[in-house]
Amino acid sequence: MEDENRRQFHPTKPIRCIVKLGGAAITWKNDFERISENLEIVSQQLRQAMTVSTSCGKVLGMDWSKRPGFEETSCVVDGFNFQPDLDSSHFIVVHGAGSFGHFQASKSGVHKGGLNQPLVKAGFVATRISVTSLNLEIVRALAREGVPSIGMSPFACGWLTCEKNLQIASADVSMVAKAIDSGFVPVLHGDAVLDTSQGCTILSGDVIIRHLAEQLKPEFVVFLHAQRIVHCDTDSIFSESSTLLKWMLQDVDGFPKVHEDGKWSVVKPTFENLNKQVEFTVAAHDTTGGMVTKISEAAMIAKLGIDVYIVKVATSHSLRALSGELKDNIPEDWLGTVIRFQR
Amino acid sequence: MEDENRRQFHPTKPIRCIVKLGGAAITWKNDFERISENLEIVSQQLRQAMTVSTSCGKVLGMDWSKRPGFEETSCVVDGFNFQPDLDSSHFIVVHGAGSFGHFQASKSGVHKGGLNQPLVKAGFVATRISVTSLNLEIVRALAREGVPSIGMSPFACGWLTCEKNLQIASADVSMVAKAIDSGFVPVLHGDAVLDTSQGCTILSGDVIIRHLAEQLKPEFVVFLHAQRIVHCDTDSIFSESSTLLKWMLQDVDGFPKVHEDGKWSVVKPTFENLNKQVEFTVAAHDTTGGMVTKISEAAMIAKLGIDVYIVKVATSHSLRALSGELKDNIPEDWLGTVIRFQR
Repeated sequence: MEDENRRQFHPTKPIRCIVKLGGAAITWKNDFERISENLEIVSQQLRQAMTVSTSCGKVLGMDWSKRPGFEETSCVVDGFNFQPDLDSSHFIVVHGAGSFGHFQASKSGVHKGGLNQPLVKAGFVATRISVTSLNLEIVRALAREGVPSIGMSPFACGWLTCEKNLQIASADVSMVAKAIDSGFVPVLHGDAVLDTSQGCTILSGDVIIRHLAEQLKPEFVVFLHAQRIVHCDTDSIFSESSTLLKWMLQDVDGFPKVHEDGKWSVVKPTFENLNKQVEFTVAAHDTTGGMVTKISEAAMIAKLGIDVYIVKVATSHSLRALSGELKDNIPEDWLGTVIRFQR
Repeated sequence: MEDENRRQFHPTKPIRCIVKLGGAAITWKNDFERISENLEIVSQQLRQAMTVSTSCGKVLGMDWSKRPGFEETSCVVDGFNFQPDLDSSHFIVVHGAGSFGHFQASKSGVHKGGLNQPLVKAGFVATRISVTSLNLEIVRALAREGVPSIGMSPFACGWLTCEKNLQIASADVSMVAKAIDSGFVPVLHGDAVLDTSQGCTILSGDVIIRHLAEQLKPEFVVFLHAQRIVHCDTDSIFSESSTLLKWMLQDVDGFPKVHEDGKWSVVKPTFENLNKQVEFTVAAHDTTGGMVTKISEAAMIAKLGIDVYIVKVATSHSLRALSGELKDNIPEDWLGTVIRFQR
């Protein structure tokens, strides 16, 4: 009976958006466990994207706990019943780790499995401490902006993998759905999890997003990245900083096409020789499979008929993507990447 | 298939002990969100109780994250493969909230339900932030002592209640069992959860313990309290500080008896008029049902044939209880309370 309930539970309201906060977008990737100022802007933009009415009431925060460096806690309970209504039940947030978790995971080899080794087990514990610390800070930042955020760790939610982190062996999304139906914004994250083949691994936020998208069918998915990821001309693809990666992705004026077999390409404008240029570079410290995973997960989501927007964090463009402005028509002046399934 | 796995999963090793860290035992109950020094001692005692060998190797911590007020993080990876083995797979930790969570819950009335009211929803978010902050600190304190602790929030684990917090409507313990089987120490806590009858409520750590005890059948349960809770003579029962409560419980020289109907009484020595003296006082700020819940949960556990030890935290007596010394014989010089089912 209990399990029947869990199995059949889907949210009664359609989900509008799953947002991925890239690790490098919300932390200083080269500064150990340091959160970026972008997080505050992201939280404000999420609140704006969720606000139904146009009236701008005073934001009443939902983080009533002590904060290091702050003398007083903020708890104003009187105004809540006059708050403008947030359309929060339409959002799920998933975040990466950035400068949290990666150090602990790579130091111990958690992504390679082997929990019977004391160092791997210790690294598993250390990794979870680091990523759940970040999760708590993100939940708090959102709550301070009045977003009813609820931290939900994949490990605790019962997410298990097989074949390292590329396949989900078990993931009960019913609690995520119940949280949404109750008007909360679930906040999940890349996590250390148990793996049926090698004991343990790192489950990346991108794999989580794909699984949630498959199960819960959001209208669109937004990836907030540290950089606008690509410029493109007819024979080269590179990131804003010219150093990151070559990606087979296009700015808004080039839509990649996802084929029936799950492969994908750019369809507009057509660069005939683009397919020959695909090159993936995986950073040595990236324990989550790097860009190969990220791109293929985004393409898998697009294949479900769900628009994927990849956009630079904390910009006017990210706010427009979060607000759902791009759904019917991509404005000429919007900068970012759209991956859309073209049959 | 996925759900079948979850339903049938029980730990392959028997569970030795479920430990309740009382909120007042590990926090300063009258000092908002302040952790007590007891937590460090509790963590050390848990490590000692789990240590299989008698050799005292250097403790290698598993918290490799930044700590406010500490310049450097502690990450010594070299010695892990020579660590003395911990028998950690036999323990579960559940903690209360103390000066975390109660303020947020009582300010908003989360325990009374009504998630459609903006203040209750905000209080739900604020309560979870506070209790998960405490959970993270406890996981970190245990990890620093080399205990492979894993935070598992009841909300995220899918625990739901009905009829306020006294009945569990749904609680999947399979992830807790899997964590134990993988050699981890799950750390759960009193939490704000969804409730099928009134929308939401506070699920107390005591109800969690009873449910875990029913499902996972530990050898014994230890409640670590702030005070040795009772002295007793023939017609009065009171706490160490003479102020807390009157409890129908006995020091070690008086075993309460749990009757078949779930009621219980003291059987040794016999105080004939004790049953007339039962009096429960619930502190006004206690949102979890207070002592009525605590006592009845402990009695329900004893009724399963599981010994319950109630003992003052961070004492030699608590270490002896955690180590399992009391199972066959209660030493004369041990101070604490035993609740044992006598048919």
